[in-house]
Amino acid sequence: MSAERFEKKETIDLRKKYIGPSCKIFFSHDPIKIVRAKGQYMYDEKGQRYLDCINNVAHVGHCHPDVVKAGAQQMELLNTNSRFLHDNLVLYAQRLQATLPDKLAVCYFVNSGSEANDLALRLARQYTGHRDIITLENAYHGHVSSLIDISPYKFHQLSDTEQNQFVHVASSPDVYRGKHRADHSDPATAYADEVKDIINKAYKKGGKIAAFIAESLQSCGGQVIPPVGYFQQVAQHVREAGGVFIADEVQVGFGRVGSHFWAFQLQGEDFVPDIVTMGKPIGNGHPMSCVVTTKEVAEAFMSSGMEYFNTFGGNPVSCAIGLAVLDVIEKEDLQGNALRVGQYLTSLLEKQKEKHLLIGDIRGRGLFVGVELVRDRLKLTPATAEAQEVIYRLKEQHILLSADGPHRNVLKFKPPMCFTTEDAELVVEKIDVILTELEEALDLKLNNALTVENESNKRKLLTDENGHSGVLHSKGSRQGSPQQTKQSKRLRT
Amino acid sequence: MSAERFEKKETIDLRKKYIGPSCKIFFSHDPIKIVRAKGQYMYDEKGQRYLDCINNVAHVGHCHPDVVKAGAQQMELLNTNSRFLHDNLVLYAQRLQATLPDKLAVCYFVNSGSEANDLALRLARQYTGHRDIITLENAYHGHVSSLIDISPYKFHQLSDTEQNQFVHVASSPDVYRGKHRADHSDPATAYADEVKDIINKAYKKGGKIAAFIAESLQSCGGQVIPPVGYFQQVAQHVREAGGVFIADEVQVGFGRVGSHFWAFQLQGEDFVPDIVTMGKPIGNGHPMSCVVTTKEVAEAFMSSGMEYFNTFGGNPVSCAIGLAVLDVIEKEDLQGNALRVGQYLTSLLEKQKEKHLLIGDIRGRGLFVGVELVRDRLKLTPATAEAQEVIYRLKEQHILLSADGPHRNVLKFKPPMCFTTEDAELVVEKIDVILTELEEALDLKLNNALTVENESNKRKLLTDENGHSGVLHSKGSRQGSPQQTKQSKRLRT
Repeated sequence: MSAERFEKKETIDLRKKYIGPSCKIFFSHDPIKIVRAKGQYMYDEKGQRYLDCINNVAHVGHCHPDVVKAGAQQMELLNTNSRFLHDNLVLYAQRLQATLPDKLAVCYFVNSGSEANDLALRLARQYTGHRDIITLENAYHGHVSSLIDISPYKFHQLSDTEQNQFVHVASSPDVYRGKHRADHSDPATAYADEVKDIINKAYKKGGKIAAFIAESLQSCGGQVIPPVGYFQQVAQHVREAGGVFIADEVQVGFGRVGSHFWAFQLQGEDFVPDIVTMGKPIGNGHPMSCVVTTKEVAEAFMSSGMEYFNTFGGNPVSCAIGLAVLDVIEKEDLQGNALRVGQYLTSLLEKQKEKHLLIGDIRGRGLFVGVELVRDRLKLTPATAEAQEVIYRLKEQHILLSADGPHRNVLKFKPPMCFTTEDAELVVEKIDVILTELEEALDLKLNNALTVENESNKRKLLTDENGHSGVLHSKGSRQGSPQQTKQSKRLRT
Repeated sequence: MSAERFEKKETIDLRKKYIGPSCKIFFSHDPIKIVRAKGQYMYDEKGQRYLDCINNVAHVGHCHPDVVKAGAQQMELLNTNSRFLHDNLVLYAQRLQATLPDKLAVCYFVNSGSEANDLALRLARQYTGHRDIITLENAYHGHVSSLIDISPYKFHQLSDTEQNQFVHVASSPDVYRGKHRADHSDPATAYADEVKDIINKAYKKGGKIAAFIAESLQSCGGQVIPPVGYFQQVAQHVREAGGVFIADEVQVGFGRVGSHFWAFQLQGEDFVPDIVTMGKPIGNGHPMSCVVTTKEVAEAFMSSGMEYFNTFGGNPVSCAIGLAVLDVIEKEDLQGNALRVGQYLTSLLEKQKEKHLLIGDIRGRGLFVGVELVRDRLKLTPATAEAQEVIYRLKEQHILLSADGPHRNVLKFKPPMCFTTEDAELVVEKIDVILTELEEALDLKLNNALTVENESNKRKLLTDENGHSGVLHSKGSRQGSPQQTKQSKRLRT
C-alpha cells in the first residue's frame, strides 16, 4: 500500500474543495504532508524526517507497535458498545483508577476531551444543583457549545458574542506575567482570594457556583504553572460555596509532568479534585477520553434518572488500546524519561536564557515546557513575531515546535514521551542559532535593554484550538516564503 | 490472547465498582457478556451465538475483515491530527461527497454523532445569526449539554429542568399515532403547517429560528417515517424565516433504507437539507462522525474568525476505516441487500399483522423497521409490557431485539446490513410463537377487541439514549428471572 495517493498539490486542492475552511493547517502557506511516523519522528512524502516536539497525543511515540497490535487484535475480535459486559472496560477502569487517589473511583468513557469536559459540567451541575462555572483567563476546554462558553481562549475572539452570564473568569495564576508575580509573598493565596471574591460577587447577584474548572497546567493559556497551594485554596472556597473542582488533564496527564502521573498532583498530596477529565494521550491518537469522579457525584448524576449512554465510549477496542498505552508507559518508564529528559531540556534552556535577552522565562514540568519570549525583560513586551520566526525557521530545519499563550509568544514543548536528551540538545542548539541571529538583527544583546516596538500587530496571527497557533499562518499572514524575505525586513517592517 | 479475563460475576462486580451507574447495560438482571462477533452474530463467553437485530453501528457486519485490515494497516503507518496534509482525509471527503447532492459539499470530521449535531447547531447559528431551534417531539440528538436541550426524549425525563427558551418542539410526523394520521388527506402539509405556526409564534415573542433539526427517520422516537413532502414544506417555512434544515442521519444513513444512500432522500429529489450529520455506522464501530454542509454555511462559519479544530477528527486511521466501510457497502451491495431483505422482513411481518391483533403497525424502509404493538387497534393502547416480553423472550432464544418509542412499545429492527432472509425468517418465526402465547394469555384473538388494562405503569421502564430502552431493565424492574415467573402472572399482575 502506497502511503501517498495524490501529489501534494492535489491534496491541497482537494482539501480546499471538501474540508471546512475553519479547519486550519500547520504552516498554511507551505503545509507539511506527513505520510508516516515512528516514535518522536514524522516523515513527509519525500521521506524527510521531522523531529516532533509538539504531538502530545502520540504520547508513547507515534505508531507504537504494542499499541497498534492491541488495537488490531481487538478490532478483529469485537468492537461494540458498553451495554454488553466486557472485560476490557472494567480492566481499564481498574487500571486507570489505580493511578488516582482512592476518592476518584468512578469512570465514564467518552470519545474526546470535549465530550469529557461537557460531561464534567453536567456532573457538577447535577451534583450541586448550581449552574455557574468559574474558569480561568485564556483557558481552553473544548469545541462543543458548552465549552466555548467557558473557554476565554475561544470566546474572546468573537466580537459579537456576549459572555454567558453563568460563566465567571478568574485571573490566570501566572506568576511571570500575571496579576501576582514571583516577587509576591504568597501568589497562591492572592490568586485564590480572587476566586473567593468572584464567588461572593456571583452570590450577591443570585449566582451559585457549580464548579471551578482549570487545566492542571494551562496549555493554550501559555504553559502556566499555578503556584503550589493555589488549587487547595480554590477548592476550599468553591466547596464552601457548594461547588466542585474539575481538573482538566486532557493535555497534561498520563505522566507527562514526570514527577507524578497527574499534573494536579504537583499541588501536593492534600489536593484531590472532585472530577478529573482525560483525553488526548489516553489512546495514543485513538479517539477515547474519560471522566473520573467520586461515588457521591456519580450517584447524584444517577439520581436524575437520566441514563448516560455514549455509542463508542468505552468500547473493547478503545479500552484495549488504553491498556496498551498504560503498559508501555510503565514498561518503558516513560514517566521517568519525561522527568529526566524534561529536566535536561529545561537546564539547557536555562543556559540559553543566560545568553539570550529574548528569553524571558523558562517554565515547565517534565516534558511540558514553555519558553516565553520577550522584547524587554522588565516590561515583558511579548516577542510575538520573534516566536513565530523561531517556529518557522525550525520547521525549515525539520523540527516541529509551536508557540501559544495569549500573546502567542510562548514556545511550547510537549513531545512524545520517548523524546531523548539528544533530541533536546538538537532543538536547543537550533534555537540558540536562531535567537542569536534574531538578536543581532534587533541589536538586542544581553544587558542591552533596548525596547523594540512590538510588531505583533503587523503580523496577523491565527488562532488555534490545540495550542499550536504559532504555526498556523494563512497565506496572507506572511509576505512571501521564508527564503524570499530577509530576516531583518521581516522583523523591522 | 484469551477473549475472557474475568469470570462473568467478577466482570459485573468490577463494573459496579468502577463504571458510572448511569451507564446502563442490556438485560441488567442477567446481562450478556459478549467476547467476539462476526457479521450479524455475537458470541458470549460460553460460545453461545446471538443473532444481532439491533447493532446498526456494526453496519457492514461485526469485525468485517476489510475494515479491520484498513484500520490496522493505517494505525501502523500514521495516526495524527488534521493539521498535517493527508490523502485519506481528502479522499474520504471526496468519496462521501459523491453520495450526496452537489450542494452538500463541505465536510467537518468529528468523533461522535453528538459532536456532529453540536457542530451543526453552531454552524446554523453562525450562518443565520439566529438562535432558536425547532426539534421534534420524542427526538434524540445526542448526550452533550446543547443536545439534551433539543432532545425531548431526554429532557422530558427531568422533572426539575425547565425547557430551554430557545427550543421549540413540533409534533412528531407520525401518521400512525400522531396528531394527523393516515386517514388525513394531507398529513405532510398538516404537520409542516404546525412548524410554520411555531415559527410565527416564536417570531412574535422575538425568537428567530436558526434551524429545524430532525432525524430523517425518527429512531428513538419510535421508527417514525415522515410523510413524503413534509421535509420540503418544513424547509421552505424555515428558510423563509432565515433558518436552515439539519437532517440527522446518525442512525439511518449509509444505505440502511435500501432504496437510497441517505434517508432524507426518501422525501424526493427536490429535497436537500442545508446540513447533514452522520455518525454510528460511518466507521463500523470506530469513533468517527461527520457534518456536511453547503459552501455558504461553511464560509459564514469561517467568517467568525474562530478556528475549528478537533484533535482526533479526520485522522488518517478514521478515514482509512471510513473508506473501507464505503468500499464494503459497494462491493457487497449492502444497500441492495438492505432493500431486498428489508422488504422481505416487512412482508413477513405484514403477514404476522394479519394473524396477531397485538401488532398495530408495521413501518420501515430497508433494514430500519418498526413493529408497533398495541392492546387495542382502535384505541392504539400501547402494548408496552408485551413489547418488553417479546424482547426478553427473544433474548432467551438468543436473538437481540429492542423496543423503543415514547411508549416503549415499538420493536426495532436495525441489524448489521449483512442480515439475510434466513435471519429474517428466524426472528419472525420466534416472534410469531411469542405473540401467539401472549395473545392466548391475554385472551386476545383477532377480531376480539378486548381492551386490556395497560400495564406499562406496573413495570418500571428504564430509558435509553440509543434506542434500546426496551432491553434495559433494572433489577427491580422485573420480578424474578424469566424462568421463575409465569407468563400469565407477568402480564396480569
